[in-house]
Amino acid sequence: MTQPAEPLPKLPDWVAADWGTTHLRATAMGAVGPMATASSDDGMGTLKPAEFEAALLRLIGPWLSPNQTTPVIACGMVGSRQGWAEAKYRAVPCTPVAPDTLTRVATTDPRITVHIAPGLRQNIPADVMRGEETQIAGALALMPGFDGVMCLPGTHSKWVHVSAGEVVSFQTFMTGELFALLSTQSVLRHSIAADGFDSAAFDTGLSDALSCPERIAARLFTLRAEGLLTDASPTSARSRLSGLLIGVELAAAKPYWLGQPVTLIGAETLCSHYAHALKAQGLTPATLSAADCTLAGLSKLKGAL
Amino acid sequence: MTQPAEPLPKLPDWVAADWGTTHLRATAMGAVGPMATASSDDGMGTLKPAEFEAALLRLIGPWLSPNQTTPVIACGMVGSRQGWAEAKYRAVPCTPVAPDTLTRVATTDPRITVHIAPGLRQNIPADVMRGEETQIAGALALMPGFDGVMCLPGTHSKWVHVSAGEVVSFQTFMTGELFALLSTQSVLRHSIAADGFDSAAFDTGLSDALSCPERIAARLFTLRAEGLLTDASPTSARSRLSGLLIGVELAAAKPYWLGQPVTLIGAETLCSHYAHALKAQGLTPATLSAADCTLAGLSKLKGAL
Repeated sequence: MTQPAEPLPKLPDWVAADWGTTHLRATAMGAVGPMATASSDDGMGTLKPAEFEAALLRLIGPWLSPNQTTPVIACGMVGSRQGWAEAKYRAVPCTPVAPDTLTRVATTDPRITVHIAPGLRQNIPADVMRGEETQIAGALALMPGFDGVMCLPGTHSKWVHVSAGEVVSFQTFMTGELFALLSTQSVLRHSIAADGFDSAAFDTGLSDALSCPERIAARLFTLRAEGLLTDASPTSARSRLSGLLIGVELAAAKPYWLGQPVTLIGAETLCSHYAHALKAQGLTPATLSAADCTLAGLSKLKGAL
Repeated sequence: MTQPAEPLPKLPDWVAADWGTTHLRATAMGAVGPMATASSDDGMGTLKPAEFEAALLRLIGPWLSPNQTTPVIACGMVGSRQGWAEAKYRAVPCTPVAPDTLTRVATTDPRITVHIAPGLRQNIPADVMRGEETQIAGALALMPGFDGVMCLPGTHSKWVHVSAGEVVSFQTFMTGELFALLSTQSVLRHSIAADGFDSAAFDTGLSDALSCPERIAARLFTLRAEGLLTDASPTSARSRLSGLLIGVELAAAKPYWLGQPVTLIGAETLCSHYAHALKAQGLTPATLSAADCTLAGLSKLKGAL
């Protein structure tokens, strides 16, 4: 997952940084778009406030010159209260990003300036996002005029109602984190494979959860019991767990997706599972890459700096 | 939680052992009942098969004499495939315990003989229990003729339909394990207190979950968002999480409890939360102590040895 930066034949105009809890991903941006990418595991979760500048310079140092100041625009958990500097949430309904709300971070190295994009908050029901707002802005740049629902599956999946260029409302589901905890930390770990995908088992879990979502805590233990009593395959158990958790999410997110145009934004494999699940509900979702959307969103912010 | 055994003025007739994944709890039994208790953290999860006998002797050695063989009867995960010796599941419908199905374990120390009680299995839907069957047998000994539903809340809560002295069917919910993982390993840990109880917050979670159980993954993240956006108390968040998870369990277990006499078997505080929740649904559950039931169940097995 980590990839050092290599010196470039030409200095970048600016650097886009996607700085989450576990990783820092940087893209050197030139006049016509991305020139190079680099990443490290210096995520927000492992750094104290005073360590962020050094972590950034460690990664993108080869792209910088003492003779020039390169702007860096960052989004994600780097702007949380426990991050480099707090970029206060903007309240929905609002546009996903707004250039005049970037937080300028104090830096000591003259080769860089750093701005952080704020996340979004919703007061009722209470909800927050950091990083996804930039992806949403990027998705709107890639699909101008989109009106409908964006789903950003992941550790904390977001369902977002977008209309007239604004985020109207959103809801977060802990689906990815539940999957990680259950498959690696709970008693289910004994019955669940580390990888692999069984489409039929996924569909079974999905349909079980959509028809009786309230039975989730019992369905989970069934995976363990079947592992003990039958020769249920650990790959099939993994896929059924995924189907169950995504099914419970879809059951609850129905007010978001029912009868709406849906765009998925995320990692390719995960999006393909959500797309498959939504197709079974009669939808035909579009899919955008999270990396593309982040870059498009940060570019929009850069354009207005 | 650990408590060494002290030498006794008189040797026990036998020793009752409740041997789970994390703990070993032993009771020295005399002619008129319990004489003393002892416990260690030599749970099944930390021992290899060859280490169980030594772990048992370490704990109960002070109760033994070289001149006498003391029978030990054990229940719980000690009888699982990863335990001391596998005591194969009995299939429901059946009586919770049956003396002629005890597994005699090979031991080298002449001071003890050891028997392990088997757990129960259900083929459809797949489910298993180990240890709870002994509590159920004990509860039936304490409440002869009971016909109805027993709920054993805990790491893996069990709902059990008992009729004519037999376990007819049962269903396991991962409620306690979900609570532990979410409150200590997930992002919610930042918003959740290590202890304390707020009855109103518990009720809110309970009622939210009972009315819309499918929204559980979203309700969970709301706890985190409220921790960030409001000054929601971590104690209140802990109680709401508990209410949410117990509420989802009750929503799914409704076919078990609706219109039935319900007996709770478990730890006092946890049972009181379940009792409170069930009372809000119009039930008046009885409560028995898990330790009392385990002892009564093991005593029943001893009586028939």
